Amino acid sequence: MSFLRNAWYPLCWSAEVGEGLASHRVLGERVVVYRRTDGTIAALEDCCPHKFLPLSMGRRHGDRIECGYHGMTFDCTGRCTSIPGQEVIPATAAVRSYPMAERLGLAWIWMGAAEKADESLLVDLPQYHDPAWKAVHGASLYNAANYLNLIDNLLDPSHVTFVHGSTLATPGGRDVPVQSEKTDAGVTVWRWILDSPPIPVFAKTGHFKGNADRWHYYMFTPPSNCIIDFGSGEPGALTEETRSQGLQIYACHFITPVDDENCIDHWLHVRNFRIDDPVLDAQLNADLAGAFNEDKAILEAIQEQERRYPERRQIRLAIDGGPNRMRMMMRKLIEAEEQAAAGTSTAA
Amino acid sequence: MSFLRNAWYPLCWSAEVGEGLASHRVLGERVVVYRRTDGTIAALEDCCPHKFLPLSMGRRHGDRIECGYHGMTFDCTGRCTSIPGQEVIPATAAVRSYPMAERLGLAWIWMGAAEKADESLLVDLPQYHDPAWKAVHGASLYNAANYLNLIDNLLDPSHVTFVHGSTLATPGGRDVPVQSEKTDAGVTVWRWILDSPPIPVFAKTGHFKGNADRWHYYMFTPPSNCIIDFGSGEPGALTEETRSQGLQIYACHFITPVDDENCIDHWLHVRNFRIDDPVLDAQLNADLAGAFNEDKAILEAIQEQERRYPERRQIRLAIDGGPNRMRMMMRKLIEAEEQAAAGTSTAA
Amino acid sequence: MSFLRNAWYPLCWSAEVGEGLASHRVLGERVVVYRRTDGTIAALEDCCPHKFLPLSMGRRHGDRIECGYHGMTFDCTGRCTSIPGQEVIPATAAVRSYPMAERLGLAWIWMGAAEKADESLLVDLPQYHDPAWKAVHGASLYNAANYLNLIDNLLDPSHVTFVHGSTLATPGGRDVPVQSEKTDAGVTVWRWILDSPPIPVFAKTGHFKGNADRWHYYMFTPPSNCIIDFGSGEPGALTEETRSQGLQIYACHFITPVDDENCIDHWLHVRNFRIDDPVLDAQLNADLAGAFNEDKAILEAIQEQERRYPERRQIRLAIDGGPNRMRMMMRKLIEAEEQAAAGTSTAA
Repeated sequence: MSFLRNAWYPLCWSAEVGEGLASHRVLGERVVVYRRTDGTIAALEDCCPHKFLPLSMGRRHGDRIECGYHGMTFDCTGRCTSIPGQEVIPATAAVRSYPMAERLGLAWIWMGAAEKADESLLVDLPQYHDPAWKAVHGASLYNAANYLNLIDNLLDPSHVTFVHGSTLATPGGRDVPVQSEKTDAGVTVWRWILDSPPIPVFAKTGHFKGNADRWHYYMFTPPSNCIIDFGSGEPGALTEETRSQGLQIYACHFITPVDDENCIDHWLHVRNFRIDDPVLDAQLNADLAGAFNEDKAILEAIQEQERRYPERRQIRLAIDGGPNRMRMMMRKLIEAEEQAAAGTSTAA
Repeated sequence: MSFLRNAWYPLCWSAEVGEGLASHRVLGERVVVYRRTDGTIAALEDCCPHKFLPLSMGRRHGDRIECGYHGMTFDCTGRCTSIPGQEVIPATAAVRSYPMAERLGLAWIWMGAAEKADESLLVDLPQYHDPAWKAVHGASLYNAANYLNLIDNLLDPSHVTFVHGSTLATPGGRDVPVQSEKTDAGVTVWRWILDSPPIPVFAKTGHFKGNADRWHYYMFTPPSNCIIDFGSGEPGALTEETRSQGLQIYACHFITPVDDENCIDHWLHVRNFRIDDPVLDAQLNADLAGAFNEDKAILEAIQEQERRYPERRQIRLAIDGGPNRMRMMMRKLIEAEEQAAAGTSTAA
Repeated sequence: MSFLRNAWYPLCWSAEVGEGLASHRVLGERVVVYRRTDGTIAALEDCCPHKFLPLSMGRRHGDRIECGYHGMTFDCTGRCTSIPGQEVIPATAAVRSYPMAERLGLAWIWMGAAEKADESLLVDLPQYHDPAWKAVHGASLYNAANYLNLIDNLLDPSHVTFVHGSTLATPGGRDVPVQSEKTDAGVTVWRWILDSPPIPVFAKTGHFKGNADRWHYYMFTPPSNCIIDFGSGEPGALTEETRSQGLQIYACHFITPVDDENCIDHWLHVRNFRIDDPVLDAQLNADLAGAFNEDKAILEAIQEQERRYPERRQIRLAIDGGPNRMRMMMRKLIEAEEQAAAGTSTAA
């Protein structure tokens, strides 16, 4: 499988990057990550070019890493600065370094050409930084599943009725149609469900005496960022434009494709109500964690089936509009990148 | 590996099929099985055609199954009856259904063309239903071994001396020749061992003061049914025709080929002595379970060796007559089925 | 991967070979080993030619093995001597037998043509047999790593500084150059480090008040024998010729290539000081075991990386002289053997 390379991928939470050498896998590559003495993050290919020992099994000397086998030392750019037992350092004695950035509580890695790394391309959510809102970090949920299958799920309001009945759905949503569109930034899928019982996570808050209107906007931006904006208001009280006057939650999923068959969902939520209530922080995250583990069980079962039946083709349903747009967008982006790379090498 | 498809295979014990959705594997295919409200058994391909989620992870609504991911609903014939979010149901929205039957305490599945399913082809053992005999269900013994290797074993009186010395054999049987023949129904292998010490399971019953005559008839019928008729009488007292006057046991093995390298041996015994003695029920089954686990250890070791040495060819011995007839019969049946299928598709 | 076949490989410790049937794997082949009634060791292919059951799952009758499935019996040469149920023994009813020898506390197997087996080719270390020295058996350390990578490590004084700082190295060794040469018997790599603090294992003995001279001679002989001669004396006191007047240790590694990705390091040490001190026996072996487990962690991580990145090529450093000579020598020996085998089959 091909991946989009000129893009920012989340690697881990910012708070997890410290003095120690941590090893992560992304797009099938092993990366060693650590925080420089100046506080910024360094990331190198986690593989000494001599005998391939992971550099994460070595030691730090200042901002440099000394390999744990023969002491080859690399600076933050991946250049080898010393080799015990020899004076001359061959040009091949180098490892790749990766641009890193931090945003939304996460450390992000740029997997493509370093000169194209551009922090303005990082995903953002203004409410995350807004003191009128509360951002609560969730967890890093490992899924033994392809990351696009997880994104399918996160662009798919239809499954909520069948999978998350105890948290995020009520039976009434079953047949409410879903709309989807390609936007400049990515793909959005949405529906409003009007004048029906509030879903359990809102019902628990006690804000509603009777029915509520609720909305779901599922927003994808490449390569693997999904933000679900959902909320509720009194029947008839809110519109798309005024919905932030209701109870609103952004459930954010920033996904690390570990390889073809594994991914990590770094999730968090941002909300506009009871923002000083740490009990609600924990309760909402517990509800969300429960729901995302329901998805995990499904996605991992599907991954096994895909392995078992490699030649079977899925049928397409009306509810697949959003996921299909996402997959077409990703396919085009990856093809364009591969053609550009082929053109570059032809020109050179 | 090819399997015979137009045939009944045991799937599990009848008593294991209830209201819940149970997933089984047979011939490499995953099947969901449940008991309809009318008491009969339904079996469907355990794979939703949309995203491949096993239907066994869904829910029953009456006799229908609703997929646990997006609520596609299937009736017992595999036809999709509703898709949330759309009116039109495409022709591809279907899963395979399998004819099922019940006999000898087991639920049987027909893996071939449904219109060819014929309950008269089910294996039977009249004594199982005869009140003068006692049928005692054993267990479902999982073997990480090819099912034909297990059938080899169950058509092979010669190994008993070397593998089952504490239960089913005495040293005297070592060189007594074995006879085999192709019958209308399958393959039979047999030998009589005359006037020698009774084997441990009969010795324990206390019926014999001294030596005994004993017989073994190993009977195979395709695709994977083995019945071993063995027993003992006073020396000179019994013949093939009159042997049911002695102590007689039918050890039955009905085998599920899970895939090429795994099978499940559903075994039970039927006997004509001390039929009201539950202590003997348990003791005999404990002895048989011990013996079959001795076979399992051997068959699983052989399976590992076959994996390790894929190009090695076995040598053939005189004792292999029965197994060789069985393998030739199975090869011809499978080839005939494949040729018929090829002819059908050419004609069409 | 090809292995050198006309060579002695260690299989296990002599003391481990007894009356019972033990199964070992070497060069990917399974071998059953046992001690004959006359005290010598027999080794046969661990695979009955009938159904492939490992003969190690059978029984001994005197020096013969009876297969545990159908009683085929083999003598120590691998010839079948009886088959229950038939008189004629076909020529194909045989298993391979392997020449075995014992030396340095180990049982050795000859994996090539039996007629070429020559005990004069066994590795030896005279000091092992010399009462003025003490030989202390260590352990059989399993490495999930290719055996040549382990031999690389055992011809590589440079890694000691970075891997074994608490036992076998001091920081001073970091840049002392290493010399290597091809000898008649194999490859030797060596260096002296003069007038520097003693390494921890010698420091602990209390023999040195201040600095010491120390030497390391890493000696490889095909196919998989490594002896490391290291020791220390007062600064300026010793030369290559007189070094046995200092504290001297031979750390011996005799390696079983289990298959391409696994090997077993049978290690022991022989020393010339405090030879009657069992506390030191244990302490030195504990220190060595600690160091060899440090290597194991590295070698197993490298094996994983090689699996992950099959197309990546290592860069070569100055310190790799010894390992490179070893690999060239092994390559030539294996090629010569394969050409000779091809020539033989052409001639025949």
